[in-house]
Amino acid sequence: MTVAICPGSYDPITMGHIDIIERASNLYDRIIVAVATQPRKETLFSIEDRVKFILNYFKKNDCIIVESFDTLLVKFAKKYKAKIIIKGLRAVTDFETEFQMAQLNHELDPSLETIFMMASPKYAYLSSSAIKEIAQYGGNVKDLVPQEIEKELMAKFV
Amino acid sequence: MTVAICPGSYDPITMGHIDIIERASNLYDRIIVAVATQPRKETLFSIEDRVKFILNYFKKNDCIIVESFDTLLVKFAKKYKAKIIIKGLRAVTDFETEFQMAQLNHELDPSLETIFMMASPKYAYLSSSAIKEIAQYGGNVKDLVPQEIEKELMAKFV
Amino acid sequence: MTVAICPGSYDPITMGHIDIIERASNLYDRIIVAVATQPRKETLFSIEDRVKFILNYFKKNDCIIVESFDTLLVKFAKKYKAKIIIKGLRAVTDFETEFQMAQLNHELDPSLETIFMMASPKYAYLSSSAIKEIAQYGGNVKDLVPQEIEKELMAKFV
Amino acid sequence: MTVAICPGSYDPITMGHIDIIERASNLYDRIIVAVATQPRKETLFSIEDRVKFILNYFKKNDCIIVESFDTLLVKFAKKYKAKIIIKGLRAVTDFETEFQMAQLNHELDPSLETIFMMASPKYAYLSSSAIKEIAQYGGNVKDLVPQEIEKELMAKFV
Amino acid sequence: MTVAICPGSYDPITMGHIDIIERASNLYDRIIVAVATQPRKETLFSIEDRVKFILNYFKKNDCIIVESFDTLLVKFAKKYKAKIIIKGLRAVTDFETEFQMAQLNHELDPSLETIFMMASPKYAYLSSSAIKEIAQYGGNVKDLVPQEIEKELMAKFV
Amino acid sequence: MTVAICPGSYDPITMGHIDIIERASNLYDRIIVAVATQPRKETLFSIEDRVKFILNYFKKNDCIIVESFDTLLVKFAKKYKAKIIIKGLRAVTDFETEFQMAQLNHELDPSLETIFMMASPKYAYLSSSAIKEIAQYGGNVKDLVPQEIEKELMAKFV
Repeated sequence: MTVAICPGSYDPITMGHIDIIERASNLYDRIIVAVATQPRKETLFSIEDRVKFILNYFKKNDCIIVESFDTLLVKFAKKYKAKIIIKGLRAVTDFETEFQMAQLNHELDPSLETIFMMASPKYAYLSSSAIKEIAQYGGNVKDLVPQEIEKELMAKFV
Repeated sequence: MTVAICPGSYDPITMGHIDIIERASNLYDRIIVAVATQPRKETLFSIEDRVKFILNYFKKNDCIIVESFDTLLVKFAKKYKAKIIIKGLRAVTDFETEFQMAQLNHELDPSLETIFMMASPKYAYLSSSAIKEIAQYGGNVKDLVPQEIEKELMAKFV
Repeated sequence: MTVAICPGSYDPITMGHIDIIERASNLYDRIIVAVATQPRKETLFSIEDRVKFILNYFKKNDCIIVESFDTLLVKFAKKYKAKIIIKGLRAVTDFETEFQMAQLNHELDPSLETIFMMASPKYAYLSSSAIKEIAQYGGNVKDLVPQEIEKELMAKFV
Repeated sequence: MTVAICPGSYDPITMGHIDIIERASNLYDRIIVAVATQPRKETLFSIEDRVKFILNYFKKNDCIIVESFDTLLVKFAKKYKAKIIIKGLRAVTDFETEFQMAQLNHELDPSLETIFMMASPKYAYLSSSAIKEIAQYGGNVKDLVPQEIEKELMAKFV
Repeated sequence: MTVAICPGSYDPITMGHIDIIERASNLYDRIIVAVATQPRKETLFSIEDRVKFILNYFKKNDCIIVESFDTLLVKFAKKYKAKIIIKGLRAVTDFETEFQMAQLNHELDPSLETIFMMASPKYAYLSSSAIKEIAQYGGNVKDLVPQEIEKELMAKFV
Repeated sequence: MTVAICPGSYDPITMGHIDIIERASNLYDRIIVAVATQPRKETLFSIEDRVKFILNYFKKNDCIIVESFDTLLVKFAKKYKAKIIIKGLRAVTDFETEFQMAQLNHELDPSLETIFMMASPKYAYLSSSAIKEIAQYGGNVKDLVPQEIEKELMAKFV
């Protein structure tokens, strides 16, 4: 059974993340959506909420599981016997950052491979930060995040 | 009448910004220099000062007006009946960020176009951050900002 | 009256080109689609065909005119009293090439501005070369080029 | 059984290609090394030689098979029931080209995913063109290509 | 005597920095490792520690000297009669930032040249931030920093 | 005595090349301008002319010498006891190509360092190809190339 990890902060998960995770789930037996707790960064949603949103969205998909983590990704991967990290790429600046991260992880654990999938063109502009900025100013985030998150965002920024 | 918006933080406006705004004013009937209030970021100059500096510089140019804004850019554009956003590009990293922003704004309001103008080579290295760093260490910012701002910067960092 | 030029080889024109030209035609009074004859490069379609395809597609749009050219773009622009060159950008490599070209043209004629519009995400992968490669191997180019060109491509590669 | 394709011209295969193929073979059940015949480009080695070199190198690895192809990659993938295309990325310019190609292939066949693996740092500078240029001037390509190819290159450029 | 400066925060120095400094010391008579005090940024190690680590590592190399600085780099260079600034480049995003900085410094003092050396492939993924993140989570930074720093990092994050 | 090489095709040399060579000559004792014969590429000017133009331009500068070469650059460098290769960078795409070339040369001869200098902003758009294209269409290349070359270009394209 091939296990692959989709790591991120998911603050909150967007339709862009979901697109990558679903496409990845067609390629591997099990996908672990690994949500970084980020204790040193300020997040809009708590780690519990960020995990819950993802669980709710994928509740009918048995091969996608969700875990939070606050450790080196290579240790998390070892614990879950994952040998693949999946990252979505939207743009060249993503590429550079992710490339260095992938090389570093490969250095720390050579048995771990990072593979990259391209964002679908229609989500290439999407990021959690963009979502939060739009919501904050009362813009419409329908179609950009799951319905549950749209509501939570509206509640946060009333 | 074609109205175009040049948005930014302008903390403070540099000769690079001014070059783009003046070239844009040759292409469109009215240019609105839209100064983001940035309530959540620390700025060196207050929103009032940032607006004032721009007003003073362009006071003889009737087709350039200056407004502060603290909303989604697409809403600001609608209010002022602008259908064009103008951004200056200096480098590839600018390009990526601006590209995603442009796609996002186009998604939020498909009638709004973002167009890009290239920075003049002689200003390609200029940014408000660079100006502030130079001034802070007593470097010479003459020729890089309007004279009024040069004085204000010197006063700030005495 | 503001006249803007959309230069290119258009061998053949794609839906990506058309998207840029139509969006540009909302911003300026007249758009000149300037088709480079490219006497030193081998093209799939003759200059006559390349011009004809574009004329046919835009025949109902009075503000879009089509001209071939075999000279410096700055001379062509002067002849047609155009002060704006419009280029679509799809990716970072486009950006670099176009940036150098724009600086060069600005050097040759400082009154001429090049402005950049971003490709719509759904056409970001499209290029005339890609179209020709797909058609050559019997792939489906419907929705990627106007119907007339789809037929011509099929005829070329039977 | 998951089948993945590693397409390329392989004129000739380098240790950089081999590194990607071997790492990919740890992730998927079967790897098809798909060698583009490239009838319209001049190659140093014939399609027969390019395939033979790869076959010889991987002869002990049952899960890696080698095929030449002269068709659209999406058709080749369908014929071999492959749902994954694997591309190695060395640099940003690779990234852009491959990204557009991946989007195009996804458009032509949405069930086909392209995934990217990063080149190992020690092979990041390697390309078939570089190998040929070094060999041509009598430089040492040992450690950069399999031994058989080193000999063939020396024979070509005596 | 040609004096060159290698400026940075060095929080802490990595094997990647050391590789650049040593290669630079083969090219110029004297290398000044200039450690930015960074009073406005939070650093993991104090300026005294950051300088000490570098001094200890290079103590047998007479042509490498270490100085802290809290001024404009162009002023520091003038004081030490250095006419060259050396920067290591790892990736495209480095390139852009460093390019703008180099142009700015050239503007402030035209007699000062910035030259760029490429990171060795094996250190291309390394940065002080990455080191700190690995150490924080108990990862192994041996071979990535000098032995003294490895111990200090372990002590910091027990 | 430190010897540095500035390699290129120089078909023809531009003011951008000259700017890099002159700035390099302030940093090293001797500069060898190494002109690649390029037997397999079509050049506008013969190797004799390309060398002659450079010789004429720098005839009063004793520390700049000019040589043609048709071998691996690492062999040429060894023959002339040069330990530095100097390349001018204009843009990100330059950077990538040059970076791979530098890594390759470092692999072939680890004692050889490639260092990069940034193009002056005012020449960032300049290339030999651009010069030839402008000249071909009767554009003005004054200020972009030495006067002798301006005349030769006009003669070529009458």
